[in-house]
Amino acid sequence: MEKLIGNAIVGQSGGPTAAINATLSGVIRGCIENPCVNKVFGALNGIEGLLEKRLCDLSSLFSDGKNLAVLEQTPAAALGSCRKKLPNPDADPEIYKKMLEIFKEYDVRYFFYIGGNDSMDTVAKLSKYMNNAGYTMKIMGVPKTIDNDLAGTDHTPGFGSAAKYICTVMQEILLDTAVYTVKAVTIVEIMGRDAGWLTAAAALPSLNGISPDLIYLPEVFFDYEKFFEDVEKAFEKHPNVVIAVSEGVRTADGKYVGEGTQSGAVDVFGHKYLSGTGKALELAVKERFGCKVRSVELNLPQRCAAHIRSKTDIDESVNVGRSAVRFAADGETGKMTCFVRENGDGYKCSVGLCDISEVANAVKVVPREMINERGNGVTRECLEYIAPLVCGEAECLYENGMPMFFRVAK
Amino acid sequence: MEKLIGNAIVGQSGGPTAAINATLSGVIRGCIENPCVNKVFGALNGIEGLLEKRLCDLSSLFSDGKNLAVLEQTPAAALGSCRKKLPNPDADPEIYKKMLEIFKEYDVRYFFYIGGNDSMDTVAKLSKYMNNAGYTMKIMGVPKTIDNDLAGTDHTPGFGSAAKYICTVMQEILLDTAVYTVKAVTIVEIMGRDAGWLTAAAALPSLNGISPDLIYLPEVFFDYEKFFEDVEKAFEKHPNVVIAVSEGVRTADGKYVGEGTQSGAVDVFGHKYLSGTGKALELAVKERFGCKVRSVELNLPQRCAAHIRSKTDIDESVNVGRSAVRFAADGETGKMTCFVRENGDGYKCSVGLCDISEVANAVKVVPREMINERGNGVTRECLEYIAPLVCGEAECLYENGMPMFFRVAK
Repeated sequence: MEKLIGNAIVGQSGGPTAAINATLSGVIRGCIENPCVNKVFGALNGIEGLLEKRLCDLSSLFSDGKNLAVLEQTPAAALGSCRKKLPNPDADPEIYKKMLEIFKEYDVRYFFYIGGNDSMDTVAKLSKYMNNAGYTMKIMGVPKTIDNDLAGTDHTPGFGSAAKYICTVMQEILLDTAVYTVKAVTIVEIMGRDAGWLTAAAALPSLNGISPDLIYLPEVFFDYEKFFEDVEKAFEKHPNVVIAVSEGVRTADGKYVGEGTQSGAVDVFGHKYLSGTGKALELAVKERFGCKVRSVELNLPQRCAAHIRSKTDIDESVNVGRSAVRFAADGETGKMTCFVRENGDGYKCSVGLCDISEVANAVKVVPREMINERGNGVTRECLEYIAPLVCGEAECLYENGMPMFFRVAK
Repeated sequence: MEKLIGNAIVGQSGGPTAAINATLSGVIRGCIENPCVNKVFGALNGIEGLLEKRLCDLSSLFSDGKNLAVLEQTPAAALGSCRKKLPNPDADPEIYKKMLEIFKEYDVRYFFYIGGNDSMDTVAKLSKYMNNAGYTMKIMGVPKTIDNDLAGTDHTPGFGSAAKYICTVMQEILLDTAVYTVKAVTIVEIMGRDAGWLTAAAALPSLNGISPDLIYLPEVFFDYEKFFEDVEKAFEKHPNVVIAVSEGVRTADGKYVGEGTQSGAVDVFGHKYLSGTGKALELAVKERFGCKVRSVELNLPQRCAAHIRSKTDIDESVNVGRSAVRFAADGETGKMTCFVRENGDGYKCSVGLCDISEVANAVKVVPREMINERGNGVTRECLEYIAPLVCGEAECLYENGMPMFFRVAK
């Protein structure tokens, strides 16, 4: 087979993670070492910047490879991101025509798009259009999301580092809340609208002998009465009860638990309050038990706490980007690189390919058998699935007591 | 001078920090190496446990020194804590009589109390009572607090690690929020009811070239109109405005900014909302600018994120505990060990002693000259004061991908 030679463009899309730049670094490494790729450009703010020809020359920026180590420890998308959903090319081809022109202008034969669900939709539409237009190019999706909810891959790059932050901070909170003898409940709200993977990671400290008392995932309907019984029972064991809860838990009527607190509550401007799930449960526990209650929303650090990245996650994130270049140079297109976990003892994982159509419109949730029967905790199988992904500590260079980071000038 | 020989008790009090166990380790190390101390006991839950004779034998527990390294990386009080304020011994001597009996029963000649403001009050009252009662013993206070608001010491053990977590996460949030091109405001609420030291630490990323746009400390009255002007001006520079604010900021009428949102706002149970300062400003910005706004409360991890401890802080925290034993064995009593920063180039700091009376009822706030004129940022002098305290990364042992920790059986 004849090799396709030309330039490459790489873009980042969707929400930030602590590992998305490690994947970017992998793509850059792959492009630099592959003779099929002449130059690799970065599209600033993903598709949005591509359409405005806001490109930067990554081949020059990382020519000596020196900055790649710093890039790999920098959280959030170094190229900037966007949340743009492309139209159907049959109904509205204008945007695609424009991209085709830009690809021709820059002699682009490789396009790598790092992102989640929506980005894979972009990859699918784009590769179909370019194929129909008769323009030979290879378009590859590279996964990333802290949520671990992408189909077609054993797990997602970025999840391991987010999970490592969550289980580490959960362990610290468990130690923190245990110092007093006064009856108290601490509720920790964790990201995950539809999938409970990140919240399940809060159970990992149990491998070290301590654990939150109760864990609620969005995969099981939330029942206030059962919840109160659970808390009551936890108080029999110790005065400090700690609860991990997904932001996305819903009651049987389909309403988010976090929604409940909004009704009737208005601020000084007359606006409805938009408080979260943790706050809602805080109020409910205070009402029922009258004890000290605190809610903690782990918030943004879950997706950007690069200072405690999982080495496993970062190594794999580099690899999944690098492999995308290799697959594309070998002639693959319109696919997503993915992780394939090997069966057998110990953790082993390789990079494979999966069909975009499998990924684009699916959400992978925590299977029911990984959640205990009562729906207030996870099973051993769940712990064993997540545990290897948080293992190892990625090296980190510091400057002035804070991690060094790399910025692409915009 | 004749040496006083006997047993020692050490207790921990007040809110958890990431360094309070490093100080405990320092006291244990000091007791083990000092011939004046036979055995060192830990009082579980501070004074509360002492009164119930809930003591554990730390000399045996740490006889081979092996566990001390793990203790030093464990957040929150390993002995447990309490928030007990002692009565005036003249008016109510019962509790003191009981303690004297216990000290005699266990042949205790040394008492070390690790804590903040209130704990120093305990040390002052206790040493005065024992002196009046004619019982020869040495009682020393050892400081700790993340807030850095203790008088009599250049800074407090625990502050450096909390500040390191805050500036690291602030840097990560700055990178995270910069990825989109859409106009947005992110408000980060930081601990500190009366003193703005922790919030000031959010300015440290400016040493690495990025910084929150606006910083508000409780030392300066908060003015909503000036605040809106500040935000307006920040938008002229870039679309992503990031604000750091102390939980304790107050308007000129003395009301907490966080209080404002409570009036009129009730939840489904009819309770008043207790939202925070960040939430209040989130609503205010949304009302005024109509843009995307998010508030992030850094919450508990500020005081327990041992996974990113400052090496400077941890080394000093061990030292301040160890030195307390040395001072006591040398005959000092009723005092607090403190940090003395040396003048001149580079950062040098030694452990000294200060009078408890200086400490017990004072709060050290950020001086006005460390805050800029407009009251929306800190000065170079402030950065130079805090910067050395977050420097260095304390070694950390991991187990199952999470930091190892030490638990004293209760």
